[in-house]
Amino acid sequence: MGNCLVAQSGGPTSVINATVAGVVTANQLNPIYDHVYGGLHGIEGILQEQFVDLTNMSTRALELLKQTCSSALGSCRYKLKRENVADFEKIMQILDAYDIDTMFYVGGNDSMDTVAALNEYAKEKGITNHRFIGCPKTIDNDLVITDHCPGFASCAKFLATVAKTTWLDVNVYTRQEVFILETMGRDAGWLAASTVLSGRVDLLVLPEEDFDKELFLKKVKEIVDATNKCYIVVSEGAHYADGTYLAAADAKNDGFGHAVLGGAGNAIKNMILEAGISARAKVQDMSTLQRCNSNSQSKTDVEESFRLGMSAHMHSADKSFTGQMVALRRSEGEFYNAEYFTVAADKVANFVKHVPAEWILPEYEGMSQEFYDYCLPLIQGEPDYIYDNGTIAQIDPFYL
Amino acid sequence: MGNCLVAQSGGPTSVINATVAGVVTANQLNPIYDHVYGGLHGIEGILQEQFVDLTNMSTRALELLKQTCSSALGSCRYKLKRENVADFEKIMQILDAYDIDTMFYVGGNDSMDTVAALNEYAKEKGITNHRFIGCPKTIDNDLVITDHCPGFASCAKFLATVAKTTWLDVNVYTRQEVFILETMGRDAGWLAASTVLSGRVDLLVLPEEDFDKELFLKKVKEIVDATNKCYIVVSEGAHYADGTYLAAADAKNDGFGHAVLGGAGNAIKNMILEAGISARAKVQDMSTLQRCNSNSQSKTDVEESFRLGMSAHMHSADKSFTGQMVALRRSEGEFYNAEYFTVAADKVANFVKHVPAEWILPEYEGMSQEFYDYCLPLIQGEPDYIYDNGTIAQIDPFYL
Repeated sequence: MGNCLVAQSGGPTSVINATVAGVVTANQLNPIYDHVYGGLHGIEGILQEQFVDLTNMSTRALELLKQTCSSALGSCRYKLKRENVADFEKIMQILDAYDIDTMFYVGGNDSMDTVAALNEYAKEKGITNHRFIGCPKTIDNDLVITDHCPGFASCAKFLATVAKTTWLDVNVYTRQEVFILETMGRDAGWLAASTVLSGRVDLLVLPEEDFDKELFLKKVKEIVDATNKCYIVVSEGAHYADGTYLAAADAKNDGFGHAVLGGAGNAIKNMILEAGISARAKVQDMSTLQRCNSNSQSKTDVEESFRLGMSAHMHSADKSFTGQMVALRRSEGEFYNAEYFTVAADKVANFVKHVPAEWILPEYEGMSQEFYDYCLPLIQGEPDYIYDNGTIAQIDPFYL
Repeated sequence: MGNCLVAQSGGPTSVINATVAGVVTANQLNPIYDHVYGGLHGIEGILQEQFVDLTNMSTRALELLKQTCSSALGSCRYKLKRENVADFEKIMQILDAYDIDTMFYVGGNDSMDTVAALNEYAKEKGITNHRFIGCPKTIDNDLVITDHCPGFASCAKFLATVAKTTWLDVNVYTRQEVFILETMGRDAGWLAASTVLSGRVDLLVLPEEDFDKELFLKKVKEIVDATNKCYIVVSEGAHYADGTYLAAADAKNDGFGHAVLGGAGNAIKNMILEAGISARAKVQDMSTLQRCNSNSQSKTDVEESFRLGMSAHMHSADKSFTGQMVALRRSEGEFYNAEYFTVAADKVANFVKHVPAEWILPEYEGMSQEFYDYCLPLIQGEPDYIYDNGTIAQIDPFYL
């Protein structure tokens, strides 16, 4: 028997570790690998042979891992470029040295491209003793083909709760007030949209639509004039028709050619104040907290992330299984249920799943019933957390 | 029998409604008042006779009220000034008209001043048929005499959890990175200090100490040079020796003569970047969310807030009981326990309880064991929340 390797990449989520726990647990139930290695800091650490042995993690440690947010194996933004052949050669040598049959890579869009690239390279070189399997995760929920991405639902549950509670805060005073909640979501508005589950959002600005400042301010004014308040949610990726982000002034670059956004909320605040629509406007930028909030895990999400890791491990018993991603499909039927299926990683990499235009109500008025039907089953249930002296216990990361 | 009135004022907390639930519950158990009225939007709404009847709230509704954050009766920033005699006359007339024996006012410093002022006015005018009782609440924990304030512990529990999880997020990448968490706490550093319960804070900047930029940056540099990371927590009220807030550029006024702060985190970020200590620095401003987060209620806090409301009601059976605040004392003994006692509201109003200097470690290195011993018992326990389709159920505010 050989070994397997599991690593994480890209932005963390609240349930990304559950997939790792799933791979480890599956191998304890059916030890098709001698060792389950964890690769630290994704490809970056793998290239430096930074491995830990996860094979015999205790049930207790695995339970803690499932409720620990962020990437316990560390992450990276290192982009494996097809032209850097030396990287590929080195990875294959390291996989040889550690007798690693299968590498599971948990990540988003870029990570699925890594899986596809490693598979292509191996195929090209006739390498058949290493296989590459992708496990999706992203709070952005922007991977194609899969019904949804592990990590999204917990963030959605958190954001919907935040909208519910901050709406209560905004409304306690009688004074005029506009509140603007800014969420992540670079190209896809799934996260911003999830706040409508609170039932409290007046206006919703998504990156799927070109921002029409005049129309938007007209709507804000109507609502403020009628109710003295306005609760607005905006995605960081909101942009004008010419593609300029509302937050353009703050835009930087993350090394993958993606703009690092932030400030869409402030942009909206400033335009409302400048237009004299409200005397007060306040921004809550959810920032880092939305992708690492252990308090609001969706049990559905945790369990799906965990099972997806198990499914990946189980699929890998098939020696021809490589270059694939395990994906989620929604079953037909009265009750919500997820099925696990596989798809070639290169069919997922570098595509973006946007919120369907027909689910977006006109004039920033929120989401259609289809979106509620899609999203609500995903945020159901709460884990029975293990606490450590008053705060949710989190396992120490393996990279420490 | 007459009636009683309960109202809320000042900034909301996550457990301020539990005190209202306590008053209502106590009156159901021992109906010394015919009606328990809720006054909407504090003094502001009372002056406009905006009352709701809470007397017969169901057990289910009271349970929901206890887990609903922010002020369900609404709040106000209206300052009852002693020179505005007309306000006092009008309040007494309204209390007469509604046959209100006792007014319970749930709030912080300014609210205790309102209780004291109403009591003084009544005494001066020989009014004996209306009594005024204060119930403390404030996330800032800055009221004197009481061991701690309902609302603080839930916010502390939330912030400690946030420090725990965002620390994990900051550390997933190998890159150099400074993270700055900004908390509320205008004059007192209790909230910022509570983040040390995470065990992850490198440097802590409190308003109790004059900020020494040179020393602080030296410390940041040492930590970044040694670990490539630095996790910093700063209170919004952090200031230089001359009293200038770090966030001075953003300072405005809230109408009570308090500066509206914000931006201490950004001030620190900018000084770190300008000094060239780290290439990356990120700020998470907790803003509104920290005072209205239902996800992280401390069960200890909820129950104390509830019992404090009950205690206030029970004390009010004594017809001479007025101008008082119900406070919390920590019992002697092996296990944490809170006792309820009373103190004249004017002994509390307009004083500020700072974090004791001897609990603050030198050079921004955090808090002494005394602080952990003080704070840890307060954040223990989690309520069994009632959920509504995936998010924590919140009762609709009474002012809607």
